[in-house]
Amino acid sequence: MTANDTICAVSTAPGTGGIAVIRISGKDAISITDTIYRSGKKEGKICTQTPYTLSYGHIEDETGRIIDDVVVALFRAPRSFTGEDVVEISCHGSIYIQQQIIALLIRKGCRAALPGEFTQRAFENGKMDLSQAEAVADLIASSSEASHRLAINQMRGGFSRELARLRNRLLDFVSLVELELDFSEEEVEFANRVQLKEMAVQIEQVIRRLAESFSVGNVIKNGLPVAIIGETNVGKSTLLNRLLHEDRALVSDIHGTTRDVIEDTFNLQGVTFRFIDTAGIRETQDTIESMGIERTFQKLKQAAIVLWVVDATRPVREIEELSHRILPMCEDKKLILVFNKIDCLIKAEKEEKEKFASTLPGIEYIFISAKENEYLSALENRLVQAAQIPQNQENDVIVSNVRHYEALTRAHTAILRVLQGLETGISGDFLSQDIRECMHYLGEITGQITSDDILHTIFSRFCVGK
Amino acid sequence: MTANDTICAVSTAPGTGGIAVIRISGKDAISITDTIYRSGKKEGKICTQTPYTLSYGHIEDETGRIIDDVVVALFRAPRSFTGEDVVEISCHGSIYIQQQIIALLIRKGCRAALPGEFTQRAFENGKMDLSQAEAVADLIASSSEASHRLAINQMRGGFSRELARLRNRLLDFVSLVELELDFSEEEVEFANRVQLKEMAVQIEQVIRRLAESFSVGNVIKNGLPVAIIGETNVGKSTLLNRLLHEDRALVSDIHGTTRDVIEDTFNLQGVTFRFIDTAGIRETQDTIESMGIERTFQKLKQAAIVLWVVDATRPVREIEELSHRILPMCEDKKLILVFNKIDCLIKAEKEEKEKFASTLPGIEYIFISAKENEYLSALENRLVQAAQIPQNQENDVIVSNVRHYEALTRAHTAILRVLQGLETGISGDFLSQDIRECMHYLGEITGQITSDDILHTIFSRFCVGK
Repeated sequence: MTANDTICAVSTAPGTGGIAVIRISGKDAISITDTIYRSGKKEGKICTQTPYTLSYGHIEDETGRIIDDVVVALFRAPRSFTGEDVVEISCHGSIYIQQQIIALLIRKGCRAALPGEFTQRAFENGKMDLSQAEAVADLIASSSEASHRLAINQMRGGFSRELARLRNRLLDFVSLVELELDFSEEEVEFANRVQLKEMAVQIEQVIRRLAESFSVGNVIKNGLPVAIIGETNVGKSTLLNRLLHEDRALVSDIHGTTRDVIEDTFNLQGVTFRFIDTAGIRETQDTIESMGIERTFQKLKQAAIVLWVVDATRPVREIEELSHRILPMCEDKKLILVFNKIDCLIKAEKEEKEKFASTLPGIEYIFISAKENEYLSALENRLVQAAQIPQNQENDVIVSNVRHYEALTRAHTAILRVLQGLETGISGDFLSQDIRECMHYLGEITGQITSDDILHTIFSRFCVGK
Repeated sequence: MTANDTICAVSTAPGTGGIAVIRISGKDAISITDTIYRSGKKEGKICTQTPYTLSYGHIEDETGRIIDDVVVALFRAPRSFTGEDVVEISCHGSIYIQQQIIALLIRKGCRAALPGEFTQRAFENGKMDLSQAEAVADLIASSSEASHRLAINQMRGGFSRELARLRNRLLDFVSLVELELDFSEEEVEFANRVQLKEMAVQIEQVIRRLAESFSVGNVIKNGLPVAIIGETNVGKSTLLNRLLHEDRALVSDIHGTTRDVIEDTFNLQGVTFRFIDTAGIRETQDTIESMGIERTFQKLKQAAIVLWVVDATRPVREIEELSHRILPMCEDKKLILVFNKIDCLIKAEKEEKEKFASTLPGIEYIFISAKENEYLSALENRLVQAAQIPQNQENDVIVSNVRHYEALTRAHTAILRVLQGLETGISGDFLSQDIRECMHYLGEITGQITSDDILHTIFSRFCVGK
């Protein structure tokens, strides 16, 4: 399975930076780099360099032209990220220089790495299991405290250990059952059926908990879908900008990062919210245009939380009218009625709205001014509460990967069959088969059982250079 | 001058990548990093780590939360880029992780580095002179073979050595003159006036050659301005896309880089061309609209090369009419008449155009088809020839920095005064003063003479992290 060729790629973010790092991995990583690297020291070669040290020198092409002054870091197999010999070249972060060094390495016998190929080699060389490899990609993509925590726990083997524990218990289980089969002619029951059942119940509980954690894990990873609805000119855009702005400012403070990373998502207290763009509800004459609201409600189906923004200065009657349309569509969602423009409101008006809002069943309401940035943090707290992400999950394993969820679901079906079989007293043959199937699906997660197709799907999602 | 605080920044390109490198420099770089770094080895501290080695561990915040698994590289003063203690943390390239580590370092006592501050410290600690420091920024920004060559030669000290030679000769010169002054009462001429003059002539030649090289250096660094003019629908846009496309494809092949780096510039055979956007020349009825052509000609003034694109299938008469307007505006420029749409042309038509074009004084012409991509490489060769960048400049020092050019111009004025003074036999006092002034301006280039303002202007152009 281990590839024979040596791969190279720029491992740092694309574009111009102060420095860039080019990673080379494979059996010829050292000898190929030695053909282009001239150490500052006399006769300094990477092949004689002490592993895990840095050396300073420059990169030269075939004609002796100096491409750049660089620092070279050497990692020797198997103590490296990929488990192979790895050389990392730190060069100046000009795109031209990065290109020239990569092109030079390719001329000297390297192959341009495919997306995720370094991590795939780490998996294939036993440096990490498949769920840990997947966590590397999740970690790189993580943009909130919660998604980061999930990814780093998974990468550092939290999930893998949980699965290993499960697998060991299933192995004990199946050993007992299969021992019986060996002595089947003697009609002995080595395995106490009550104990077996207890074991199966426990295993079923763990698998079920892991599978169920996906509903939380998915929200953490992909963000909780939030829709902001309401008529035009009630302040929806201002509110959205307020909610997005905090995060943008934070991100660009340190980094001047690109928009697409945070496009339409915002982080509040470590939770990622994903904004669903809905068409504004428009009024034509006095009736609300059906087309517009229908389109909005189509989109609304994806939302878990709905912020219904109304202009608090408008008569209650209008809000009530709209509520007959909105409430039925939001039955399975968390609906927060946001009275905007509190800065333009007199006390009596506010009391009237409060009275009205308290009559609406199962709905929270809040008064804010998006324009004056008033009570925005109160609204944000409401959003975080509505997200209902359990806070004390530090040590809990949470599944956030849909592939893992599917495998767990299949493993769960198998263990349920085991339980049922124990109940109905089916033969050890069938019991053993179901337990082995459960183990098979768990093995798919860690990559003990895998296929090229699965690997391709997983690693092609990675960025090049990782 | 040396700052007392410890600075940190992400040194790799902004955004998400496989890995990112965070650089920390200053007297507390090691002790601060030790407060957040936990080595994989027991009791492994960076303060006891062997310099120029790598260690593997993880970053933890104050609450014990693990931020990331990292590799830490240690450089000890003065053998580091800045000349101070430097720690480089390689982490996973998630923006969130980069932010978290930077925020953590700042909480622990680091300051966020200003643009170019690492390089500024390298300059202040004598690791490089000012012209070399400036070359670091040029190197990072370089996007063609020629601009890269200029920057790397300058960074590696080619220009600095040339200036040091000049300075030494001026020092010899001024010593001789000033020795005379010490013995002025004795009316002795230690310095042979003929020898002095010979010396001054040589120095003047070198300074003049350096100052004159700026016209080439500037083109190499900023690109040669090229305008594509012509009536609408003659294929200007298609041609521009052809010229730009090659470069874009090359860049994105390896890197998927951002547009802005190469926006409206294209590299041919190592030379950068910068496209000047001119309004198309529009026809209204039969006469060429004056407004349009005036605006185009305003822009045209910036161009060094003009590609005048005509539809080769149109009658010669029309091209001739336009030539009376265009030719006078392009007298100081390289004008290439591009007959487009050769694919739609019959032989007789082509011959007629060739005959006409050969009557135009000092103009090159070429037949192409932008649409069918025919003869484009011939046109590109013409452009490269027209650029007239001397090819064998490998060892020549070429000045590409406008600040250096200005200083050289002032140094040149001073040395001319020295020459004139020797001619007219002015006193050693004045001679010495002019030589010292010449030395002063050369010293400005290398930073021996400098001010905070100059330093600020230079280093604020840098990216953060370098």
